[in-house]
Amino acid sequence: MHILVTGAAGMLGRKLTESFSRIGGPGGRPIDALTLVDAVEPQAPPGLAGRTVARAADIAAAGVAEAMIAGRPDLVVHLAAIVSGEAEADFDKGYRINLDATRALFDAIRAANSADGYRPRLVFASSIAVFGAPFPDKIGDEFFTTPLTSYGTQKAIVELLLADYSRRGVFDGIGLRLPTICVRPGKPNKAASGFFSSIVREPLAGLEAVLPVGEDVRHWHASPRSAVGFLHHAAAMDLSALGARRNLTMPGCSATVGDEIAALERVAGPKASALIRREPDPAIARIVAGWPCDFDARRALALGFRAETSFDAIVRAHVEDELGGRI
Amino acid sequence: MHILVTGAAGMLGRKLTESFSRIGGPGGRPIDALTLVDAVEPQAPPGLAGRTVARAADIAAAGVAEAMIAGRPDLVVHLAAIVSGEAEADFDKGYRINLDATRALFDAIRAANSADGYRPRLVFASSIAVFGAPFPDKIGDEFFTTPLTSYGTQKAIVELLLADYSRRGVFDGIGLRLPTICVRPGKPNKAASGFFSSIVREPLAGLEAVLPVGEDVRHWHASPRSAVGFLHHAAAMDLSALGARRNLTMPGCSATVGDEIAALERVAGPKASALIRREPDPAIARIVAGWPCDFDARRALALGFRAETSFDAIVRAHVEDELGGRI
Repeated sequence: MHILVTGAAGMLGRKLTESFSRIGGPGGRPIDALTLVDAVEPQAPPGLAGRTVARAADIAAAGVAEAMIAGRPDLVVHLAAIVSGEAEADFDKGYRINLDATRALFDAIRAANSADGYRPRLVFASSIAVFGAPFPDKIGDEFFTTPLTSYGTQKAIVELLLADYSRRGVFDGIGLRLPTICVRPGKPNKAASGFFSSIVREPLAGLEAVLPVGEDVRHWHASPRSAVGFLHHAAAMDLSALGARRNLTMPGCSATVGDEIAALERVAGPKASALIRREPDPAIARIVAGWPCDFDARRALALGFRAETSFDAIVRAHVEDELGGRI
Repeated sequence: MHILVTGAAGMLGRKLTESFSRIGGPGGRPIDALTLVDAVEPQAPPGLAGRTVARAADIAAAGVAEAMIAGRPDLVVHLAAIVSGEAEADFDKGYRINLDATRALFDAIRAANSADGYRPRLVFASSIAVFGAPFPDKIGDEFFTTPLTSYGTQKAIVELLLADYSRRGVFDGIGLRLPTICVRPGKPNKAASGFFSSIVREPLAGLEAVLPVGEDVRHWHASPRSAVGFLHHAAAMDLSALGARRNLTMPGCSATVGDEIAALERVAGPKASALIRREPDPAIARIVAGWPCDFDARRALALGFRAETSFDAIVRAHVEDELGGRI
């Protein structure tokens, strides 16, 4: 099969393409060709180098969408996005990439569909940012999308387009509302959500981490490993069970910061959790207060999507996948 | 005040502009200027002719949005739309008018907002077509939007944009999900929903009407008079109570076709209801089966929006407003 991945140089894009050389294509199908696109040139994964075309491109620029699908990929995994903070700071850039470039991709597929019947599977990375407070204790699968950021707005709009284009037979699409990915590998960043990962990642590496909120703050998490699993499952599964409702909240683990710290301590001992320094930041606390805490993601579970059910498992996934199993 | 109305030549646009000469602007404010735009040239309402600029324009064409707001209207009532059936038949036209032209209008206001602080009240006519079956018995205010038509998709997308632009202070926006307007004045048309109006309107005029579905079909209705009332209320009310959730399902009257016929008979006697000829049409029955039947529109009611609470009142509103009170 031929797979196109947009946003392939991002954290999730790299993990996904690495998984292709490790475990093959979705559903175990062999990969004949891989097209990787991002704002910076993505790396070809080991083992698939000869079959990979990696390209740096502005996906909103004229002609880029048509070029991306010129080879008629069987599967399109659309991960490319301007992240939440940047989309909020730069209105035009957020709408240009997160909405207009996505619509250009969808319309390029539509033109190909009209021309030669091309109809790929399309997997879109949406986000729980489509939801905005106030929330019920657990957000159900039929709760409305009232985002409180431009990023969440753009994701919610693409969900609607994806359902409409799928209904019309342009592609066979599915949108996955990803939980906050935790533990994110790499260095601390300035994202308001960064502490959820850094209070685990840094202590496991023997480094100090800053915690800007209280231990009672609850959020919805899944590991990078689970996120890659969601993408594989969405790419391989029979979508007819979805009907017209093509966008799904992914399963995750609802945990408080206190739960995180307790899990870290169980996995790595009190020396690790002692490296967390409390430094309250009211601005971050205020942002985080508007985020969803817990979901009843029964539709995705019934369709076979799986994530960690405890924060201990999330910590262990990080130790296994990023630290070679060593603490 | 200066008011801009798009779609001013449509049924609701004409009723709204006529109301301005009859009862004045929203909240009783005097109207200094009225800008009316539609694909065909709208009529200036009697009594406001000297203060009206009426213009035929393609609202999706370059520069039209900027021209529409050049006079900095205090209130923008955005009614212009390609209707459901046409937006389904013509993909490009539906997205061009219902989405792109609306976004162009929003972005023209955004540019003016940046340039000189312009920030109008914006009232958008959305639709219960943002919802798609299956439904609960009564659709609550937090039910998700999974439209089953491109028209409903476009309305749901504009709702999201309206909320984001309002949150960012570009305008003070509110979206009203209008019920099916009943009794629509005028001639029978080919809309799948046409029979809801024609089985009342035609018999009241002594003419035969065709009923293509069973008497148990239930739907959500409000009179043209109520729809005009919604627009006035939305234009005048304090929107701060809405918070970030700017789109509201309007109140209406849930009635079956049987309820409609019984109401017609109570108002106009059995000679009227005898003019309804049953001619089942499975295609129309299938379309209508996907439409919402009933809502719990408590948020809009709490905010002061009012509609008929019985179908008798809907029939009487038609008799009073369209037939001079005579049957």
